[in-house]
Amino acid sequence: MREFDAALAASAAIVEATLGRVLPDNGGPEVRLFEAMRYSSLGGGKRLRPFLVIEGARLFGVPLENAARAGAAVELIHCYSLVHDDLPAMDDDELRRGRPTCHIQFDEATAILAGDALLTLAFEVLADEATHKDPGVRIALVAALAKAAGPNGMVGGQMFDLAAETRPLSLEEIMRLQRMKTGALFNFSCEAGAILGNASDLARKSLLSYAQDLGLAFQIVDDLLDAEGTEAEVGKKVRKDAVLGKATFVSHLGIEKARNEAHMLGERAVSSLDIFGEKAEPLAELARFVVSRRA
Amino acid sequence: MREFDAALAASAAIVEATLGRVLPDNGGPEVRLFEAMRYSSLGGGKRLRPFLVIEGARLFGVPLENAARAGAAVELIHCYSLVHDDLPAMDDDELRRGRPTCHIQFDEATAILAGDALLTLAFEVLADEATHKDPGVRIALVAALAKAAGPNGMVGGQMFDLAAETRPLSLEEIMRLQRMKTGALFNFSCEAGAILGNASDLARKSLLSYAQDLGLAFQIVDDLLDAEGTEAEVGKKVRKDAVLGKATFVSHLGIEKARNEAHMLGERAVSSLDIFGEKAEPLAELARFVVSRRA
Repeated sequence: MREFDAALAASAAIVEATLGRVLPDNGGPEVRLFEAMRYSSLGGGKRLRPFLVIEGARLFGVPLENAARAGAAVELIHCYSLVHDDLPAMDDDELRRGRPTCHIQFDEATAILAGDALLTLAFEVLADEATHKDPGVRIALVAALAKAAGPNGMVGGQMFDLAAETRPLSLEEIMRLQRMKTGALFNFSCEAGAILGNASDLARKSLLSYAQDLGLAFQIVDDLLDAEGTEAEVGKKVRKDAVLGKATFVSHLGIEKARNEAHMLGERAVSSLDIFGEKAEPLAELARFVVSRRA
Repeated sequence: MREFDAALAASAAIVEATLGRVLPDNGGPEVRLFEAMRYSSLGGGKRLRPFLVIEGARLFGVPLENAARAGAAVELIHCYSLVHDDLPAMDDDELRRGRPTCHIQFDEATAILAGDALLTLAFEVLADEATHKDPGVRIALVAALAKAAGPNGMVGGQMFDLAAETRPLSLEEIMRLQRMKTGALFNFSCEAGAILGNASDLARKSLLSYAQDLGLAFQIVDDLLDAEGTEAEVGKKVRKDAVLGKATFVSHLGIEKARNEAHMLGERAVSSLDIFGEKAEPLAELARFVVSRRA
């Protein structure tokens, strides 16, 4: 696990440096926007999605600087979604990773615009030829990210999630919600490596199976942490689902079955990587980490 | 002018049909998001930006179906910016084109998500090969739109505009604000035609000069309408700038000089089109329309 921690930290440092370079920091009266963008996307988070991009791309021998840019793009999307999700009209959260959320640190208008700007910047980063010399590869990344983040992916999932507060969802509905709200970006992250590396159909499908099981396991563990963890351990408010009366994997399956399901999915994710051999060990470690994480 | 009105209406109808096709309308619990997206982007507006794309592209013999998709993309960006701009934390507007704004018709959370989804969809539309068969052309469109709409373009301009409410801007600052907030999308609209048509450097520069003068004239006339028009004529609240104590082209130049400046810019915009001959008559008419419009 030590080696994996180092790999995760190294990947996060590369993404941090890439984000630092692509984020605007010039002056002008709009400087507050740039400050809010940097505040919301630098200096925090495990950078799991960029790790998936970077390690997936490495399977196909993609240069690190290309993968880091695609990883930065998906992280920009993830960060924008958190900024907008935390707004008073949405989840109304005041703390994120132990710091004031963007609209608390700045103000609501700035947080709305910072989210919009992070979202737009993600596509600017992908479209730049520094991401890949082949325009066909870059446009495939843009198409895949727009689909994953758009109305039939992440944003649709956020809407679904708001609608879910009015009635408890069935297990099938919770699975569909997960696929849209969090699964789509996990899938894109693995797909990005395959696109950058011009992967074979078989390799692409194997990586996608891994991503789907990993994403679902991630969400089940999130529900378990909300149900079982303490605020100090998890680093954010817990029991939110129970207080809201929201149906989750845990409320449907119970704690033990949910934990078993997460473990089974983690193992299946690892087995999807068999065709890649030793090279995929960091991705396998990530699946083990996601299942056993305490925060 | 009759002929121009018909051309503008025909272009708007094509864009409306294209938007209707690209906007999601499938079911699911997230259907409210799709309704809000359609509500905010269908059935209204002069579609000036798509008209620029379509007429610019026509100069280079680009098939209409390609230009219409690029026009729909820039209109999606324009519509998302209006939805977010109208939010209570921003301009707090309840009416837009005589209808309740998105957050009034739906709710704030839905309006935030609908804006995010329209923005993301714009890039999905450009990335699709129906927009152009050459991936190099599509990625150039994505790069140009992301720059125009992003932190150093439209969103930066929105932030600048908010900052401007605390102190009166100089004339130079107002010009910079206009270039970012509204000019960037006008420029992109003309650039899109040149990109789609693989235009020569000279043609591209001529079209860009036209776009810059047109965008500036548009903003000056906006300020004039706010200062001189009636709510019934203009179709939205007037005297907003004066009430907020905002510096505008009119507060700096006075009404007569501002009107002269707009006319001069309109004429210069038309003269930039000389190299295209007769084919550019609809764009020339647009410049005359923008300068003389009463709403």
